[in-house]
Amino acid sequence: MRGFHAVILAGGSGERFWPLSTPERPKQFLQVFGGESLIRQSVTRLGGMAAAKDIFVITSRDLVAATRRELPELPSSNVVGEPMRRDTGAAVALGVGIAGGGGDPVVGFFPSDQLVGDPKGFRAALKKAIRLAKERSVIVTLGIRPSFPATGFGYVDPKTGRFVEKPDERKAKSYLKAGYLWNAGMFIARASTFRRAVVAHAPALSELTMPGFPLSSLAARYESLPRISFDFAVMEPVSRGTGRGSPLGVAVVPGDFGWDDVGSFAAFDTYFPHDSRGNVREGPCTVVESDGNICVARSARISLLGVKNLVVVTTPDSVLVADKAHISQMKKLFKKN
Amino acid sequence: MRGFHAVILAGGSGERFWPLSTPERPKQFLQVFGGESLIRQSVTRLGGMAAAKDIFVITSRDLVAATRRELPELPSSNVVGEPMRRDTGAAVALGVGIAGGGGDPVVGFFPSDQLVGDPKGFRAALKKAIRLAKERSVIVTLGIRPSFPATGFGYVDPKTGRFVEKPDERKAKSYLKAGYLWNAGMFIARASTFRRAVVAHAPALSELTMPGFPLSSLAARYESLPRISFDFAVMEPVSRGTGRGSPLGVAVVPGDFGWDDVGSFAAFDTYFPHDSRGNVREGPCTVVESDGNICVARSARISLLGVKNLVVVTTPDSVLVADKAHISQMKKLFKKN
Repeated sequence: MRGFHAVILAGGSGERFWPLSTPERPKQFLQVFGGESLIRQSVTRLGGMAAAKDIFVITSRDLVAATRRELPELPSSNVVGEPMRRDTGAAVALGVGIAGGGGDPVVGFFPSDQLVGDPKGFRAALKKAIRLAKERSVIVTLGIRPSFPATGFGYVDPKTGRFVEKPDERKAKSYLKAGYLWNAGMFIARASTFRRAVVAHAPALSELTMPGFPLSSLAARYESLPRISFDFAVMEPVSRGTGRGSPLGVAVVPGDFGWDDVGSFAAFDTYFPHDSRGNVREGPCTVVESDGNICVARSARISLLGVKNLVVVTTPDSVLVADKAHISQMKKLFKKN
Repeated sequence: MRGFHAVILAGGSGERFWPLSTPERPKQFLQVFGGESLIRQSVTRLGGMAAAKDIFVITSRDLVAATRRELPELPSSNVVGEPMRRDTGAAVALGVGIAGGGGDPVVGFFPSDQLVGDPKGFRAALKKAIRLAKERSVIVTLGIRPSFPATGFGYVDPKTGRFVEKPDERKAKSYLKAGYLWNAGMFIARASTFRRAVVAHAPALSELTMPGFPLSSLAARYESLPRISFDFAVMEPVSRGTGRGSPLGVAVVPGDFGWDDVGSFAAFDTYFPHDSRGNVREGPCTVVESDGNICVARSARISLLGVKNLVVVTTPDSVLVADKAHISQMKKLFKKN
């Protein structure tokens, strides 16, 4: 679509799928789900809605080279590396500055490490969002119809556009009953709308949103930027209508396009076949008297004997043996290694 | 001691400590316990009771070269390879033939893959056994005072010399009450006594016991030999006094010299220190929220997260993840790999 620019947000620490993913090859480079890397899929599913020259990637400085190799069709200057992590607030603001020049285009932000089972459905929702963003001074979010009361995502109320943070399980259940949708981190608005929202609610980041902001000075400026998420810094206040200046709003386009954030090894249980005892096996795995395991052998053969509900992953450098019920604690392990 | 020859029985399939041990490097080559290999320790603990020229090893043909490298002080012709597995009956008979020439020496048989915590105590018991074997027509066994009702060993009644097979747990408990000892597979007798016992109870093996039996014809003869253990073929009938010909008997010398057959990975729990959560760690192991595991990293770093009572072992070729309660089923895994 003319006047639409896409920004892929490709940070990532490589923790959740460690040791398959690493800080040097975080989750968006995983080729486990669907054959192509997740970041490759993120670009492919735009399906020509933005030309290659209008697709941008914000990643970390260390990942710029790998990202350019993975997406060779993008102009190399479209892949921009942040000098340090400053959460999604800074990344979105920077994306507005980089992608938002020339005739006030609609800019869409998309995570680089998600799966979408129905790309056509995704594009239909995106078209609706772009239309809305052109017509009104709103930041449009694609809200995912929840399939279970997840505690790992924020939610958005499609009636009011109100954003709420990751809930506990009790709250999550009440959100489902109330018809709330998952906030999947996909935001679409005119560049000028984003700019006004950032100026109003996160003024420390507003400089980044200006076209022509010199990238050579990023390192010096990032140091002092607040570590704050775009949801918290901008979407929540906008959704509460507390903005100063001209009225801005949030709009929600509900989507049902097989979205999955593939947030942990549990995704293997969703996307891979199981043997008769409920084990997923990728690579050379020998399994005896063992049930419900995820066995991913990327180097040496794995042999399981009498074990249940484990995630066992080998790479040439590392072996992970984790209880499935503990995989949300991967960060602890990561800090210790 | 003059007139004493020792035979180390060094077969082994490499199953119990797989993947640390392999068919090419079975348990007797493990250097995990006590720094030196177990077979090296088996020779060292004889402590000069037999000269190097009077120490013999029966192993499998494939392991002859590795065994000679491990025990370079032995004359290389003292390390003899069996052409195929025929259990301990054939191995002991062959050992009598090889080690039993010249002046009817006392021959002692010793496994190659055990630990002895008190070698002095071992030698004291052995001296007693040699004296008995010289004086009487008995096969002397070193009986180990049991520390628990093991079901993995045979037992011997020290009062009657009666041998009994591996019991179930109920029987094992009754054996302990009755003062039975563990049969650790260490037998001492004059060569002529062994020969008479074999002729009487396992005549198919008697040819092997003759000094001068041509080793070049082993392959042809082994094919047709019975697969039978020395305990079952000879010690049990001798101990029941059912021998034909001149009366032979069994004598038991009780021993208490820190004997351990290190029969499984459970030995790591016995011989290695534990961290505050009961984990044994050898090599680079990161442990988070995990208890009671044995973690042996011989190549890649192992990371444990939220797991309990596992044995996790990595070598460059293999990764084993087994529940401790299932390690007795290692054979099943081995067959499948």
